[in-house]
This record gives sequence, structure tokens and C-alpha cells, in this order.
Amino acid sequence: MIVIYFTNKHMTKKAQANMNAKQLPHVVIIGAGFAGLTAAKKLRNAPVQITLVDRNNYHLFQPLLYQVAIAGLVPSQVAYPLRTIFRNQKNLTFQMGEVTSVDFAARFVKLNGSVIAYDHLILAVGGETNFFGMDAVKDNAFQIKDIESAVNTRNHLLRLFENASREADEEKRKTMLTFVVVGGGPTGVETSGALAELISHVMRKEYPTLDIGDSRVLLLEAGNALIASYPDELRKATQGLLKKKNVEVMFNARLADFNGQRVALADGTQIKTNTLIWTAGVKAAGITSRLGVEVAGSGRVKCEATLQLARYPEVYVVGDAAYHENGNGRPLPMLSTVAIQQGNVVAENIRRVIKGLAQKPFHYKDPGLLATIGRNAAVARIWGLSFSGFIAWIIWVVLHIYRIIGFRNRLVVLINWAWDYFFYDNQVRLITRE
Amino acid sequence: MIVIYFTNKHMTKKAQANMNAKQLPHVVIIGAGFAGLTAAKKLRNAPVQITLVDRNNYHLFQPLLYQVAIAGLVPSQVAYPLRTIFRNQKNLTFQMGEVTSVDFAARFVKLNGSVIAYDHLILAVGGETNFFGMDAVKDNAFQIKDIESAVNTRNHLLRLFENASREADEEKRKTMLTFVVVGGGPTGVETSGALAELISHVMRKEYPTLDIGDSRVLLLEAGNALIASYPDELRKATQGLLKKKNVEVMFNARLADFNGQRVALADGTQIKTNTLIWTAGVKAAGITSRLGVEVAGSGRVKCEATLQLARYPEVYVVGDAAYHENGNGRPLPMLSTVAIQQGNVVAENIRRVIKGLAQKPFHYKDPGLLATIGRNAAVARIWGLSFSGFIAWIIWVVLHIYRIIGFRNRLVVLINWAWDYFFYDNQVRLITRE
Repeated sequence: MIVIYFTNKHMTKKAQANMNAKQLPHVVIIGAGFAGLTAAKKLRNAPVQITLVDRNNYHLFQPLLYQVAIAGLVPSQVAYPLRTIFRNQKNLTFQMGEVTSVDFAARFVKLNGSVIAYDHLILAVGGETNFFGMDAVKDNAFQIKDIESAVNTRNHLLRLFENASREADEEKRKTMLTFVVVGGGPTGVETSGALAELISHVMRKEYPTLDIGDSRVLLLEAGNALIASYPDELRKATQGLLKKKNVEVMFNARLADFNGQRVALADGTQIKTNTLIWTAGVKAAGITSRLGVEVAGSGRVKCEATLQLARYPEVYVVGDAAYHENGNGRPLPMLSTVAIQQGNVVAENIRRVIKGLAQKPFHYKDPGLLATIGRNAAVARIWGLSFSGFIAWIIWVVLHIYRIIGFRNRLVVLINWAWDYFFYDNQVRLITRE
Repeated sequence: MIVIYFTNKHMTKKAQANMNAKQLPHVVIIGAGFAGLTAAKKLRNAPVQITLVDRNNYHLFQPLLYQVAIAGLVPSQVAYPLRTIFRNQKNLTFQMGEVTSVDFAARFVKLNGSVIAYDHLILAVGGETNFFGMDAVKDNAFQIKDIESAVNTRNHLLRLFENASREADEEKRKTMLTFVVVGGGPTGVETSGALAELISHVMRKEYPTLDIGDSRVLLLEAGNALIASYPDELRKATQGLLKKKNVEVMFNARLADFNGQRVALADGTQIKTNTLIWTAGVKAAGITSRLGVEVAGSGRVKCEATLQLARYPEVYVVGDAAYHENGNGRPLPMLSTVAIQQGNVVAENIRRVIKGLAQKPFHYKDPGLLATIGRNAAVARIWGLSFSGFIAWIIWVVLHIYRIIGFRNRLVVLINWAWDYFFYDNQVRLITRE
């Protein structure tokens, strides 16, 4: 039995008005990350009725989430409620909840025990951490994937400093103050750089009892390069900048085990530490494996060049959950830039299908790379040029401030954010209880 | 065996320097609420070495905590890290941890398995919620006592709105949208007023599917007056202002039971609701009952007029944990104003004892009352005058902004805070997972 949710008497008045009037096509968007959010906004004035579904009631500005983990920003600075974002978009209704299944043939999704029928479906379910089957690592490692895991990481890091400040045993103290970040991609580079700077600039002052020389930040990369897909000069610059911040970079370091006390590498090396932050793998969200559709590497759903499912052209897949090759035979990276461009194309394609026009294929335009290493250095690949050091950092700051203005649209938040960011003395380092 | 913590090789360098030089008296302050924080700051230039202990790493600005519960402020706006506050106070060391016992005869406290010896001890352990033995209420009610309970209340309230927005059953929906606040003191008045305003101003816009007429806010008071100890005209004004905000005030409403679905009153009245916010009782923190000292009503420790323990004059008790009568035979209320004045006197008395001067008795100067009812009304009793309505609210805003500047000392935070407060459209209503 299919219950059409929108015939429910309790539907929105504006939705009811719309549907009674013209029976507009119903677009259901699952996931309010960058892909889903962009598509929803781009369909603002389209002749459709949209239902946006997310298991959280907020959009997360994921590129700055690592700042929450190192106590540089607080959650409300990187997350913003969806109902507030869409308050004035008349053709959109938000529903908080977790989609449990999709019936592609009958065209409905199941959510919180009820059922939502769709005419067009956008699967923008995002990604999750991939531990490649290493269960011990999964159980003991820290992640920076959502607000909860980032806050959890922050509480753990700050608590270790409190514990270390009263630990008389030197070896135990050094174990507490050794921090291992795994993964030499942008997140690993940014996290290890920011953590090293937090220690040398802030913790040194706030924990005068601690010998800051007891602390180490290690960045482990399984391959032989950081930010591997970028030009050689940027990889070298990244390495040099991290070294300057006292981050110890280890290449060809393949993780074998982590038990919460000790990291073991495949080559037998052991590192005593209570902290492993895992940034070395992402895969599509778990639901993709239960949809009965063809998936490729990392559980990503195979789709056409137009982002449609081959068998169900009314279904689009975008963002981290979509497997899409861009000419060179390699899958697109799981990045917000890909997600945003795909969100735009899918909104365009839905408008086109309504007008009876042909679907547009998606082509990714690489806008470059930007990664910060602490507060005064970054590496950037933009307009075909490589930058590193302070100039790259200025580019990073300007672009992120620009993006976050669009996101929060509040000058005062911007000032506060910039203040927090520039004068890192003033960050709020609360240890909350989970 | 007594381990003197400060002989530990891992003590602070500045503490070591101080102690080696002159063997300064060691003041241990347990609790960094208003009383402990004030005493610690006032001893800044005194010839003592201070250890400040708190189980949290932050000071909490408790008078605004109810704003966290109703999603008006975020935790970092009402809490600030103690290490940052005291970074430049050379004679103070902070230790995070929970004191488990005090040996008054041997003059040491136990903390995290280690032991801290003291010459002077300030017990500023604060208070906790008093459910007067009603276990069912304790298990099911929400509190506004610390960051965690306030965030928990916020998540619950916001989640109910999400659930109600897709609940077709009218009775269930009305149960979800009925909010009961118990206790007609300032916290109950402020919480119910702010909650009613959140619903009528914000939720009405963000949940267009909901009929706001389905929601109710009730304030239950066991006695026959709100803010009972204040002049009649203020009590009447409070009641009138709450009525205007659509808060239903019930007098002589004695709570009998709450099972998470239904509030039962002693007179047999039943109210269907998923939410009871309990603000009707405070008692001294549990540790006071395990100290082996004489306690009075609500577990508060009996002390001399000078705030000293009669048997152990080197021990002072201040704030919510102290039982102190002020002439009229009634105990002082558990308020931040009392705590701050006592913190000042105890710091003064420690300076006097070091100089060989007589101890000063404590006399409370009632600075009045200030309670907001939503965003444009308040009641105030100040300089012997009663104010209500908008003028009282302006007084409230000015005083709180003044207090929070001292607390955070950051102009930009102030602007941000004021912005959040005045333009309540822009609050960040995140539902986080516990």
C-alpha cells in the first residue's frame, strides 16, 4: 500500500495551495549537503514542489569541520538550520528524518515510517568514513565526519591536555601528547597543521606546567606524497610548510592497527599514542548498498553522464554518492566543489525535462585546490597557477569568507568568525560531556 | 599517607618559583562558579598561591543558561574556559577534576586520585537540582542546570517540533506541543516567557505546516504567587506580562507525577505533555553531605557570619553551598548576586588573616531582582524601585551586557551576542545527537 504523503491533511498550507492549483511535479531531494542544498536552491523558482530530507536539521559546512575538532570554531559556526535557510523558499518543505529505502519502480521513498512519492528524485546522500575493514581502527580512532564526531575529537584532545598536566609519569605524558593524523589528503594536512599550531601557540600558554617539547604531531601517509593528485611543487611546498609547523610527516606508512594506546604500522613501527585521527578514506553513505542499484568503487552509485540512473531516468545521483568519470577514466573526487557543480546541473536538468528539452551531461571544471597549514600558510592551485605560503593563505581566507557569507548571510557572524580565526587566543575550548 | 601535590616535580614553574622563594600560603578553591571565580580574581595580587579546581574546564554564566535551553544562545556564548580567564594570573593554577573528599583535620582535598594540601580552603561547590525525592519526575523531567542538561532540553524541544510537523494524529500533536515549566521563580518565569516567544515568533515561521494554536506553554507554581519574595506590584506585573505572551500560569499547582507522557497534579488534574522543565528546586551539591560537617536546609553547610566553618576557621563556605542567615532568620537565596558578594568577602578575609587582622562578617546587600519575560519585557526591582515592561527590559539588557563583557571581554562577542539576542530570527537551532 502506498500512502502518498502529500495527500496527508497535515501537509503544508503552501504545498497544498501549490498542488491543488496545478499539481506541480514533486521533486524529492535526499540529503542537504552541498549537492542537495545547491539543487534545492537552484530550483527555487522552478515549477516544482520540493521536499528536502536530511537526517539532521542543519546544513554542515564540511570544509571547516576540522576547525571544530581542534577547538578553532564552535559547531554553530559551521552548521546552519535548514528551516532557516529555506524559510522564504515557498516551493520547498523540509523534513528531518532518515530514508530507509527507495522503491524506484513505484517511485516513493520510505522515511520515518511514512512514505513520500516523487516525480523526480535527487539522491544526494553523501559519504561516510571508510576504514577499509580495519575494525580495531574504527573502534578506537577519531573522525571528523559530522558535528558529533568533531566535538568528540575536540573533547578528547582537550581532556588529554588536562590529564597530561597532572601526569607525573613522563612516558604516559608523552603518550598523551602524541597525536597521529592518518591520511595525506587536504583534510589530513589541514588537521595536522592546525593541531600543531594549536599546541605551539595556545596550549603552550594555557598549560604552563607542560613541557611543550613532550608533544608531537605526526601525519601518516600510506603513499609517497601529500595531496597526491596535485603538481609536484605544491606537494613539496605542503611538506615544507608542515615541517615548519613541527608536523612530522611519515610516507609509506601503512596503518596496521590501533588499540587506543599504540599505533602499529605494517612495517612493524610502533607509536605510543592515545589519539589517531583518521582522514584517509571516504565511501558513499551506507544506504547506497541497499538500494539495489549498480555501485562502483567505494559504494558509489553508477550513473549516466547526465547524472541519471540508466534504468530510472527520473532519478539523479549527485555528490559523494555518485560514481562519475570525467573523461580520464578516473572517478571524480569526493569534494564539495564536485557536489556543488553537480547540484547545479541536476537542477538545470530537472528544469529541462519539465520543458521537454534534452538532458545536459555533467562536466567537472576543476576549480583547483586550497588547503591551509595553520593560520598563515596554505597551498593553492587556482587559475592554473600554484601558490604557497602567505599569499595562498590570503586566497584561502578570502574564498572561505566569501563562501561562508553566502551560507550564513550574516555580517556579524562573519566578523566574529574572522575574529576567532585571526586572534586564535580567543577560541572557546569547552570540554563537554557526551 | 599524605602526598603533598605541590611537591610533585611536575608542578607549575611559576608555582615552584613562588613556593621556593617564599613558601606562600596555599589557597585551594573548589568550584569555579560565581563565588569561586570572584574569590580567585580578588586574590590576584595577594601573597598566596591559588589552586582553582572545577570538574568543568569552563566558568558558566548561569543566569543566561535558560537561553541555551530555548535555542537562543549557543553554549560557547555562556561558558568560557577557565585557563583562558586566568592565563595572566600568575599566582593561580587550574586543575580540572572532581573533588571526592576533604580531610579538614589534615588539611587536604582528594582529587582525581591525587591529594592537594591547603592552608586555606574555599568551598564553592555550588548547587544542584532538588526534586524533593520525586524519582519519576527526576527521571523524565528536563533541567537547566549545566551545559549538558540545557543542550539536552534544546534538542528535545526542537525534535518535538520536527516530530509534530509530520504527526497526523491531532491529540499526539497537541501533546508534543504542550510544554510545562514548573517553578514560579525567576528561572521558571524567564524560561516559560522565552519559550512562548520562541514558538510565536520563530517556530510559527519555520513550521508552516503546524497550527501554532495547537501549542501551549504552562507555568506551574505550587504557591499562590510568582517571584514570591518580591513586592506585590512586581508579582502582578510578571503575571500580566506572561499572560500577554500566552503563558498559562497555574497557581497552587502541586506536581505529583510525570511519566514523560502526562503531568499529574496533587489535585488530580492531568496535563498531556512530553515536556516538563523543572526549575522549582535547588539544593547544595551532593558533596556537602559527605563532608562530615553540619548542614542545614537543602544540604547547605552551616557557617559563621565570617563564612568560616566554626571548627575549621581556615575553611570558608560560599555561594549556593553555604547556609547563611542574614539577620531576618531566613537563609539567603541561591543566587549569583549572593555568591559574588561572598566571593569578595572571603578573598578579603583571607588577605586579613594573612595580615593578622580580624575576620569580617558577611552582610548581603540585595541588589534587587531582574527577570526577563521574552524579548521586550521584564520586571525589575532595583534601587528600591519597581519597574516592569520595556523599561525593565532595557535595564536587564544593559546590566547583562555589562556583566558578560567582564566575563568574555570581547567586543565582537558582545556584538554577536547582542545581534543574536535582538534579531532572534537568526538563532542557530541545531539538533545535535547525544
